[in-house]
Amino acid sequence: MRLTKPEAEDKETARIEAFSDGVYAIAVTLLVLEIHVPKLEDLDKVGGLAAALVHQWPGYVSYAISFLSILIMWINHHKLFQLVRKKDHNLMVLNGLLLMGITIIPWPTALLADYLLTPYAKTAAVVYAGSYLLIAVLYNLLWRHICAHLLRHDHDILNTNAMDRQYNIGLCIYAVVFVIAFFSPMASVIVNLMLAMFFALPEHLVAKVTGHSSG
Amino acid sequence: MRLTKPEAEDKETARIEAFSDGVYAIAVTLLVLEIHVPKLEDLDKVGGLAAALVHQWPGYVSYAISFLSILIMWINHHKLFQLVRKKDHNLMVLNGLLLMGITIIPWPTALLADYLLTPYAKTAAVVYAGSYLLIAVLYNLLWRHICAHLLRHDHDILNTNAMDRQYNIGLCIYAVVFVIAFFSPMASVIVNLMLAMFFALPEHLVAKVTGHSSG
Amino acid sequence: MRLTKPEAEDKETARIEAFSDGVYAIAVTLLVLEIHVPKLEDLDKVGGLAAALVHQWPGYVSYAISFLSILIMWINHHKLFQLVRKKDHNLMVLNGLLLMGITIIPWPTALLADYLLTPYAKTAAVVYAGSYLLIAVLYNLLWRHICAHLLRHDHDILNTNAMDRQYNIGLCIYAVVFVIAFFSPMASVIVNLMLAMFFALPEHLVAKVTGHSSG
Amino acid sequence: MRLTKPEAEDKETARIEAFSDGVYAIAVTLLVLEIHVPKLEDLDKVGGLAAALVHQWPGYVSYAISFLSILIMWINHHKLFQLVRKKDHNLMVLNGLLLMGITIIPWPTALLADYLLTPYAKTAAVVYAGSYLLIAVLYNLLWRHICAHLLRHDHDILNTNAMDRQYNIGLCIYAVVFVIAFFSPMASVIVNLMLAMFFALPEHLVAKVTGHSSG
Repeated sequence: MRLTKPEAEDKETARIEAFSDGVYAIAVTLLVLEIHVPKLEDLDKVGGLAAALVHQWPGYVSYAISFLSILIMWINHHKLFQLVRKKDHNLMVLNGLLLMGITIIPWPTALLADYLLTPYAKTAAVVYAGSYLLIAVLYNLLWRHICAHLLRHDHDILNTNAMDRQYNIGLCIYAVVFVIAFFSPMASVIVNLMLAMFFALPEHLVAKVTGHSSG
Repeated sequence: MRLTKPEAEDKETARIEAFSDGVYAIAVTLLVLEIHVPKLEDLDKVGGLAAALVHQWPGYVSYAISFLSILIMWINHHKLFQLVRKKDHNLMVLNGLLLMGITIIPWPTALLADYLLTPYAKTAAVVYAGSYLLIAVLYNLLWRHICAHLLRHDHDILNTNAMDRQYNIGLCIYAVVFVIAFFSPMASVIVNLMLAMFFALPEHLVAKVTGHSSG
Repeated sequence: MRLTKPEAEDKETARIEAFSDGVYAIAVTLLVLEIHVPKLEDLDKVGGLAAALVHQWPGYVSYAISFLSILIMWINHHKLFQLVRKKDHNLMVLNGLLLMGITIIPWPTALLADYLLTPYAKTAAVVYAGSYLLIAVLYNLLWRHICAHLLRHDHDILNTNAMDRQYNIGLCIYAVVFVIAFFSPMASVIVNLMLAMFFALPEHLVAKVTGHSSG
Repeated sequence: MRLTKPEAEDKETARIEAFSDGVYAIAVTLLVLEIHVPKLEDLDKVGGLAAALVHQWPGYVSYAISFLSILIMWINHHKLFQLVRKKDHNLMVLNGLLLMGITIIPWPTALLADYLLTPYAKTAAVVYAGSYLLIAVLYNLLWRHICAHLLRHDHDILNTNAMDRQYNIGLCIYAVVFVIAFFSPMASVIVNLMLAMFFALPEHLVAKVTGHSSG
């Protein structure tokens, strides 16, 4: 599919990428099912439809964080598989476990939306941050397996090192956000949102900070 | 994928297009989940199943508008990416934000379906029209980025100018529909429906009005 | 994608086919959301979980009819697009309208499942059969447009005539099933199920009846 | 898509594979919709959100079994279609019936999650194990049809024999799990989980047991 890849074997992963694209696309689209339409009979209590819509702002925030995070994960997955020379059984399994982490996201997103403004916010934020930490761990496992066995022979060593650094930094950040969630749910949500927006910034700004330039 | 493209780089965007296709396809298919099956215990009140089905006509109208609108957006996305020479990080982010707008649509669609016949119709219509305005803005950002950095060298300047005009007109129309929603919810819905049906007309009729002929 | 196609232009429709595949795949998978898990508190009334599961048999029947029908429609779509030489705007719009018909199916399926055993069975069966008639009409419009403007130059005239006959027969059958639904809901459901199973038969048996042999 | 395939005809199945990938990807992603967010008003009864989340552990277990099982089925589907030389109508129908089995999985998964800790566990476990047995039967039908009519001329006979053995063993195992479910629901769930985890093990460990090495 990518003519810029000189090695013939790269096409091997086409169907794995197609399956992964499908899972990412569906996970990202299912998120909207968790944004509720207020019920007509509840509107009197909260002062009308507009007030009810404003009132469910945690739903929009958790939607935005989750959408942007999955989008960035998809972009990373895209860049990652451009470095893959060939497939093996373990690549399919590790990629599958990563996809399992991705498909879970709509659930902690709904949990956070429903409980951020309640006394149970800490539990919701810990589960939410824990899901992202799990995904970061699974990304690292996939990355280490690719680095050890499946890397293209003509890969750019500087680019690979930058990605390696990026995966390590990402893992640390999500571990820190996870710990923060135990102390301040709101702070962990804000850091999560800032992270998602940061990685969605124009590339030259991100590159200045992470030292990574993608192909 | 498209042999009519002479430049090798075009294949670069294949996976972005596949991911986008997935998101459009899912968003368009999820819409049906918002059309309810009337509950058996409610039928006596409204006079039977047939009456209950007729009674929920706003659901069918908002379904039809949203389906046709997303379909037309997909066709535009399809035509847009045929002009793209190569990808960059910002293309993936801007395209991702556009997809975020697309995936939101099932929610305002359900909102409009539930509230068009209530005193809260204005709020629902404003949110509905606002979602389309947001998508029009995101389409324009993506289009400007492609025009500035990623356009194919052999693009047809007349075609590109026509698309530029089309994107500007689209933005203006959706801004007008948004303003109308504040004054008359029903009028904004009717304009939205007419717009969706207009763009779904046979091409030669549309071309007469917009002066655009696609490839 | 298909090396057996000698004409270069066929690749033009790759993204339309991918988008359509996505819609068919999602529509067919969403059907399962309409099969309910019985609620624990309702089990005493019906005599246990096994009895409750048996009791909702109309859900399984309507699921099976809809799944098989969409599957056969996808196979037909697949065969149809192998005859397409190039795309135009109207192909995208007509194909989009057909997909709109396909995505609606989970709704009449749920309607039929909920109402087949009630006094409202006729309404549900008419809506169900009407949806399939609508899809048959949309398939015919798409087919006529392709025949008139977009057929491959090297198409097999015998094969095309057989498909033309098949589309006409299909339209008539679904019109008859629609009429039957007004008189006997159960009869229309049984005919629908037999049709779906008939078209899923091994090809050589189907070919004997319809006189069609696919490539 | 796969350059390692020397025969031109293999591209014939590209769209069947894409459609199947879509169905697998959606089925696997819909599973998460069955994991519930506890309701605020129910939390007092169970002692808070954390306790409520722990309490619904059967939901996570059935989610994990179903995700891993569908993932492994997808990997098998992937390996299977690499052996297919060309398509025919019956391949599309048999593959479609297999996909029907796959798309059903979210329903028994939800059934098991809701009833594993109730007196109705046996019914739920029998339906759950029965669904997997049905899929194993459908896989065998597809496999036999491919072996008899559609196998690539250059297939590796040792590899094909290993897959044949694997399909037979799989069928026997799922039949045994089905029988176990009648005697001990929990035992059948544990065996199911162990099976899913076993097949997700690194390949060299699996190969030692099944004697199969994939390409």
